[in-house]
Amino acid sequence: MLVIGDEILSGRTRDANMHHLAGRLTEKGVTLREVRVVSDDADAIIAAVNALRASHDHVFTSGGIGPTHDDITADCIAAAFGAPIDVREDARALLAAHYAARDMPFNTARQRMARIPDGATLIDNPVSVAPGFSLGNVHVMAGVPKVFTAMVESVLATIDGGAPLLSVSVRVDRGEGEIAGPLAALAARFDDLSIGSYPFVQDGAYGANIVFRGTGQSRLEEAAEALRASFPAKEGT
Amino acid sequence: MLVIGDEILSGRTRDANMHHLAGRLTEKGVTLREVRVVSDDADAIIAAVNALRASHDHVFTSGGIGPTHDDITADCIAAAFGAPIDVREDARALLAAHYAARDMPFNTARQRMARIPDGATLIDNPVSVAPGFSLGNVHVMAGVPKVFTAMVESVLATIDGGAPLLSVSVRVDRGEGEIAGPLAALAARFDDLSIGSYPFVQDGAYGANIVFRGTGQSRLEEAAEALRASFPAKEGT
Repeated sequence: MLVIGDEILSGRTRDANMHHLAGRLTEKGVTLREVRVVSDDADAIIAAVNALRASHDHVFTSGGIGPTHDDITADCIAAAFGAPIDVREDARALLAAHYAARDMPFNTARQRMARIPDGATLIDNPVSVAPGFSLGNVHVMAGVPKVFTAMVESVLATIDGGAPLLSVSVRVDRGEGEIAGPLAALAARFDDLSIGSYPFVQDGAYGANIVFRGTGQSRLEEAAEALRASFPAKEGT
Repeated sequence: MLVIGDEILSGRTRDANMHHLAGRLTEKGVTLREVRVVSDDADAIIAAVNALRASHDHVFTSGGIGPTHDDITADCIAAAFGAPIDVREDARALLAAHYAARDMPFNTARQRMARIPDGATLIDNPVSVAPGFSLGNVHVMAGVPKVFTAMVESVLATIDGGAPLLSVSVRVDRGEGEIAGPLAALAARFDDLSIGSYPFVQDGAYGANIVFRGTGQSRLEEAAEALRASFPAKEGT
């Protein structure tokens, strides 16, 4: 995934789209391997798009497709692919009808949102009409979370996932340093699962949530049970 | 910045460290140019560290320095630099004293947290003792937000920032498509500022927060005033 926008890098906005996409891909059985966040800078966007599309099956982008001067994503994607870009008639017609129905001017700025690289397929925007697009394995979506969320559903419908990744969490009320040895043994025994340890401190006491991830529920339960057996609840708790 | 951890990419955890670091760097006058998020995978971590340290002044990492089997960051950083890594006496002593004082065993797993690449400087951990470290221009910190936050302060104290980046926001109750033309003119006139437009929909009405960023407060106010003059409040609002 590529997140485009100064507002994330300046700390003004806390990311929501990465978190949303990560969750939906996991449910769908697609593994999110890498996310990059870059600023509204053409060279940075083009370099990141080219690196990601070469090394992953699909690339999802978020941000920079509105009407204002800082919305340069569509032109950068076109440049990354070496594809011509101009206002496309079907996208223009969608937007023209939308603004006509609302008695709002379809001015030059709004027409920019109909700029689509040659060869791209439009991504439906049921929220505010201005479309995203897919070009090759790159899916270009809006940064506004409501619109992004809607576009993700359109794109995911076209992507075949593997078996959805399931997870089981076990809370262990011991410090990670006590858990680590038995956990490493468990990871070796259940090497078909991914096992993560997420420590916390609560009311001054150390603990960790151990998360087992895999595609078979019964296998996950088996691993969770083995972990619970290694760490029975402490007396009095 | 490099965020290391499956929990972000699986959607289990929503990022907090990137948001925190972004905000603190902005206050300090340091520009965050890029963030990458990778999984707990050695090849991915090493490749990202090497790419980022070659192209940026400083690299901040978050995650993967605890005692469990999935904590491989320190070894990956060492591999990226081609530096030897082993348990270091000063780090070991810090941890040994910490666990002795709490009557907790300083076992093999916990001793792993004293593995520090040759040539690194320790980063103080006032929360849970296990140190981070800086090697070259790479600052390696914990993923637990409370610990990350504390380590960031230690590291930032050693980094010279530029003039802090200030911002002024103006809310305009018009659609971005109406704002875009005048905003582009404003961006040309105030080309020493960065100007971002962040659209929203509220109660069915379109609007946008226009954010001016720069280092001089009076210049920001001047730009904000010019924007307000272009879009006087609508009648009745």
